[in-house]
Amino acid sequence: MAKEQKGRITPRSESYPDWYQDIIREGQLAEVAGIVKGCMVIKPNGYAIWERIQGELDRQFKATGHKNAYFPLFIPESFLKKEAQHVEGFSPELAVVTVAGNEELEEPYVVRPTSETVIGHFFSQWIQSWRDLPLLINQWANVVRWELRTRMFLRTTEFLWQEGHTAHATHEEALEEALRMLDVYANFSEDWMAMPVIRGKKSESERFAGAKDSYTIEAMMQDGKALQAGTSHDLGQNFGKAFDVKFQNQEGQLEYVWQTSWGVSTRLIGGLVMTHSDDDGLILPPKLAPTHAVIVPFFRKKEADNQRVREAGQRLCRELTDAGVRVIFDDREGQPGPKFYRYEREGVCMRFGLGPRDLDNGVVEFKRRDQADKRSVPMQGLAQFAVEQTADMQSSLLAAAKSRLQERVVRLDSYDDFRDLMDTDSKFVFAHWDGTRETEAKVKAETGATIRCIPLPGQGFEAEPGECLVTGQPSAQRVIWAKAY
Amino acid sequence: MAKEQKGRITPRSESYPDWYQDIIREGQLAEVAGIVKGCMVIKPNGYAIWERIQGELDRQFKATGHKNAYFPLFIPESFLKKEAQHVEGFSPELAVVTVAGNEELEEPYVVRPTSETVIGHFFSQWIQSWRDLPLLINQWANVVRWELRTRMFLRTTEFLWQEGHTAHATHEEALEEALRMLDVYANFSEDWMAMPVIRGKKSESERFAGAKDSYTIEAMMQDGKALQAGTSHDLGQNFGKAFDVKFQNQEGQLEYVWQTSWGVSTRLIGGLVMTHSDDDGLILPPKLAPTHAVIVPFFRKKEADNQRVREAGQRLCRELTDAGVRVIFDDREGQPGPKFYRYEREGVCMRFGLGPRDLDNGVVEFKRRDQADKRSVPMQGLAQFAVEQTADMQSSLLAAAKSRLQERVVRLDSYDDFRDLMDTDSKFVFAHWDGTRETEAKVKAETGATIRCIPLPGQGFEAEPGECLVTGQPSAQRVIWAKAY
Repeated sequence: MAKEQKGRITPRSESYPDWYQDIIREGQLAEVAGIVKGCMVIKPNGYAIWERIQGELDRQFKATGHKNAYFPLFIPESFLKKEAQHVEGFSPELAVVTVAGNEELEEPYVVRPTSETVIGHFFSQWIQSWRDLPLLINQWANVVRWELRTRMFLRTTEFLWQEGHTAHATHEEALEEALRMLDVYANFSEDWMAMPVIRGKKSESERFAGAKDSYTIEAMMQDGKALQAGTSHDLGQNFGKAFDVKFQNQEGQLEYVWQTSWGVSTRLIGGLVMTHSDDDGLILPPKLAPTHAVIVPFFRKKEADNQRVREAGQRLCRELTDAGVRVIFDDREGQPGPKFYRYEREGVCMRFGLGPRDLDNGVVEFKRRDQADKRSVPMQGLAQFAVEQTADMQSSLLAAAKSRLQERVVRLDSYDDFRDLMDTDSKFVFAHWDGTRETEAKVKAETGATIRCIPLPGQGFEAEPGECLVTGQPSAQRVIWAKAY
Repeated sequence: MAKEQKGRITPRSESYPDWYQDIIREGQLAEVAGIVKGCMVIKPNGYAIWERIQGELDRQFKATGHKNAYFPLFIPESFLKKEAQHVEGFSPELAVVTVAGNEELEEPYVVRPTSETVIGHFFSQWIQSWRDLPLLINQWANVVRWELRTRMFLRTTEFLWQEGHTAHATHEEALEEALRMLDVYANFSEDWMAMPVIRGKKSESERFAGAKDSYTIEAMMQDGKALQAGTSHDLGQNFGKAFDVKFQNQEGQLEYVWQTSWGVSTRLIGGLVMTHSDDDGLILPPKLAPTHAVIVPFFRKKEADNQRVREAGQRLCRELTDAGVRVIFDDREGQPGPKFYRYEREGVCMRFGLGPRDLDNGVVEFKRRDQADKRSVPMQGLAQFAVEQTADMQSSLLAAAKSRLQERVVRLDSYDDFRDLMDTDSKFVFAHWDGTRETEAKVKAETGATIRCIPLPGQGFEAEPGECLVTGQPSAQRVIWAKAY
């Protein structure tokens, strides 16, 4: 509590987990709800980032032919049991409503941990013929998973997400859809979040409960750990069979549909924090930052001077707004220092300071959040300058994240080296694996690392056969190992 | 089920409630979930309307200084008990989570029926001084109220809504805020939904549980019944006291904050249906309609002709899209008749039919959803024509709804006349009331009508003293009585 009041940010070198909590608190992103286990309150500065993520992803989902719908929060307990692996995966994490309207329910309702089952049920009613396919639905919703260990944004009991659910006439089409949406996620992650990712398939033990195959985008955080940032599942006919979702094909025969599901969540905000921020607070890629720029006046003794400064500030604020820059003019009373300090912590991308002397010289003081020094820039053409800076900052953050990822993926062929590395450092290791659950479990138990993904082609991680680094057995290709959030 | 397959719409004259259900089914807006008591699935055509409602209201909330945030779905049961009237009002309707992560919870969680309590708790942590005020927050969320009798959109166990929650330094400011947001709702209702409303204060018995005063917008449905379309509450210091939300005022003294809350929900979609639709299906105001126009080709025998028609249709589709018209070009196989029938039911505002002969004559066949006859219009300038038609249809729907409201508000001074009217007809009655709970309860028991609101000034329902129509006791002003959804 004393710490909170002081507003200290723990340096990353001291404790990365503490730094993360401090950034979220000082950045006004969220706070632990306290009153409900593992829940958080998303504060306006955090929610505004989520709105930007939603806005762009929603646009891309619609552009790829999906429509939004809304399904019930509550799911009859029996529904989950219809798909054996699904219930096994989710039953430890369920929140259950047993009483409603002052009466004990005959069949309890589960608060949705994900909606494959309830949507499978409705798909079975909506789909009759091949003409009804593909059916491409997305839902923006809250879900609840009772997690033992929680961490803000990364793993909370309740979280916000979108879940796409689609049904297709063939496995080929379903797989194409699953990979298309994985690409949407990967491109969004790079282009909007400035967070490069590795696209790949999950190993069996990391697969979504009930899926035929799960695909993932994995990002590297500043500490070298992996963050699973989004997943896309090829559900095969598993839910089709469980919920009797059949269609008459063009030959007049009844077949089960092939389904996909895919989702990203408020977890992405945790990924943003751990990709870009520094020991002074939040750093946000301009495309997702709620506020691009703040203009802060330097007030002096003469009120006439201050009036001139105020007018110039308002004029600049209008010019920047007109140019599409999300800018605020902070002419509240108070010293500029504490204001700058606040905006720095809250991730405003750039700041402009403006006093009477600057005005006389036709300049403003400029500092960008991701750069160390401040400098004077001409007032003339400031809007254009600010637009250029947002673009430059966006690509500069991406470049930094990309080179970190490149530097910290290592190719290893000895399990001793692997263990040493996982003991002392945190990197992504590109190494051979014999393809068994047992080997993955052994490595996890001994080092804490798991297979993040079996990379898809075209990312510089090409498939080449070899020998498993642990067992020496044949390996079809190297996979990405890392410790993960 | 046989009825569903036939796709019949019950005429309003036969059964207004059946007509309502049929319109929602045939309009592809939603369906009863069946699996969970009183829940529904909002289908893409219904959800797209909600997205438009959300988009515009969210813009207006932000323009009036509010920021979005997100609070937990679950509320400790003890929180509700902190405000005596609030718990009394909501406890019969609660869904309760008693088991989570396979363990019985020590304190059960209530699924939020509304968030005054949980937000009150956080306001008490966020507010210290008058500098923190006003605090203007909005949340888009799902809520759950275990209702005995449910009806799609109008009253469902789970529904989607927004809830504004604000805290102020004085009662005057809080009241101003509550009335400002009521005006936002009233203007949105008229300008976007083409649904005129009466703004007023609720009587004590219709007040929100825990509020000092509740304000409402009341719309008249086609059957003369009232729909409470949105409410805005002056919470006084009730929740401030219950959750210890104090601030230091400019004089250095500690005071409780003055709060408001206000909300509209997916219920508005039910209001849209019952304001505009007819016996052929959905009619939607263009500002909220997912689809403004459809272009349907009339295919003939010669493929060369059909190709010309297809190309012209695509070109017109592009022109209309560029002009901001939400248009689709439906060149799927099949006869135009069944297509027109579907689009009519689903509330597409206008349709254009186009065959080879039309093309030769430079015309298209045009029919507007709210007009009976079709006619030929020139292909030249069609985009401009379509834009004008959307504007005209919007104002024409509003004008029709306004004149219905005006015609069906009657001023009565005899309780016998009142009873006769409520027995045989359904209107809004503007009549004197002595201001007591007892009289309102008596009228409700005897006629089914309740006080919808005590109208605010400036709407043609000016306050004039008189005598209560039931008891003959003094009345400060006439109030609006009606049967309600």
